[in-house]
Amino acid sequence: MMNYKAYLIDLDGTMYRGTEPIPGAADFVKRLNEWSIPFMFITNNSSSKPEDVAAKLRNMGIKAKDEQIFTSSMATASYIHTINPDSKVYVIGEKGLYDALAKHHIEVVKESADYVVIGIDRSINYEKLAEACLLVRNGAKLISTNKDIAIPTERGLLPGNGALTSVVSVSTGVDPLFIGKPEAIIMEQAIEKLGLPKEEILMVGDNYQTDILAGIRSRVDTLMVETGVSSMESIKHLSEQPTYCVGNLSEWNPKAP
Amino acid sequence: MMNYKAYLIDLDGTMYRGTEPIPGAADFVKRLNEWSIPFMFITNNSSSKPEDVAAKLRNMGIKAKDEQIFTSSMATASYIHTINPDSKVYVIGEKGLYDALAKHHIEVVKESADYVVIGIDRSINYEKLAEACLLVRNGAKLISTNKDIAIPTERGLLPGNGALTSVVSVSTGVDPLFIGKPEAIIMEQAIEKLGLPKEEILMVGDNYQTDILAGIRSRVDTLMVETGVSSMESIKHLSEQPTYCVGNLSEWNPKAP
Repeated sequence: MMNYKAYLIDLDGTMYRGTEPIPGAADFVKRLNEWSIPFMFITNNSSSKPEDVAAKLRNMGIKAKDEQIFTSSMATASYIHTINPDSKVYVIGEKGLYDALAKHHIEVVKESADYVVIGIDRSINYEKLAEACLLVRNGAKLISTNKDIAIPTERGLLPGNGALTSVVSVSTGVDPLFIGKPEAIIMEQAIEKLGLPKEEILMVGDNYQTDILAGIRSRVDTLMVETGVSSMESIKHLSEQPTYCVGNLSEWNPKAP
Repeated sequence: MMNYKAYLIDLDGTMYRGTEPIPGAADFVKRLNEWSIPFMFITNNSSSKPEDVAAKLRNMGIKAKDEQIFTSSMATASYIHTINPDSKVYVIGEKGLYDALAKHHIEVVKESADYVVIGIDRSINYEKLAEACLLVRNGAKLISTNKDIAIPTERGLLPGNGALTSVVSVSTGVDPLFIGKPEAIIMEQAIEKLGLPKEEILMVGDNYQTDILAGIRSRVDTLMVETGVSSMESIKHLSEQPTYCVGNLSEWNPKAP
């Protein structure tokens, strides 16, 4: 086990489950802070603003600064801004997505859009989907913050953004460009923010299909925690394994003796 | 060309386009009536009641009785009734679907459903989709009236029921049972209503992927009309061709001399 110089850390299933903090998570972050190891939280959550996510963590006793939160909405806005800051964007999404686009001064429009951008939207309706389909058929590029098919809630697994996005992709036959984990786009941006070589970074998360694959695809070492979606048992048949796996984060020492 | 003893006839793109009657359609139906050739209109439309569809045709000068309309909602209700008349059904859909289920005295419920049934619903929202996902994950069977990915309108191609259904199928990983054309379920029911052997029936429609494939799969001869979605040019690469093709229905004589 090597001493990584920076960490990328997932949130849901790794730091908390819904509103419940996960044991060992706060202490793990405390040790990173004590040893001045830089870290960033990287989440497919597209609905929340980073300030709200950071406040939630602090309320759980996890020391996180606003600028240590990196969401799929922020990666989406940054991606579009890099391609063309004058892009016009039609949006299906919640405040986290609108906020990220506004911070990049990207114009949100109802028609003549260059991009249709979809994030989770629990106020989704037929008209929003219809307009998105018309724009995509008219040539707008289709971007989706993340392909998560389900969101864990107290009620059970509700439709995720990947499922909502499928209305537009199935209807138009156009494949979306996904931004969030396990895609390289969000990872490359997060790595650039950390400003360190990939081999010095460890990606920590509970979900093999998003967190661990994101690390594998971006050639960043991975630590899987069994406090959320995936277990070693459930992934043992897969050819690409996480670099490390622990039951929970209290078992992981960020600084080897 | 043989003299078919009964006809199954598509509506949108074959009898009318939206609110516009298609030239030759009314006269074709007139000849069927004059020669006492039985026929039935078979449509993937799940949102309208058969009485309303028949009235629309009559307003266009096409003589159609209420009982000559067979919708994907009617086929869906009939299918569920045949499996188990005491089924409890959670519904996403419009009045045509509710009406069909009511006519079969099928109980519509908000929870503990045996079936989740999805038809086009232009009042779709996240809560409806969420409840459908929870019920399907809890074991309810997923049925969809039809897999049409788009609906032609004056505004352009809007999301069809197949696209809406994908939210639930993508999120849950459960494949729906589709009822409408080109599936055999709606065809078998329509053929049974006509009460004649398949080889004496001709299926007429404009859409290769729904109407013509429905005929091919059910071993019913097909007549493709080039007044809607498909053209001979667009399907010439396909191995299975319609039995006949005409530019429009004025070219088709239901009774060979």
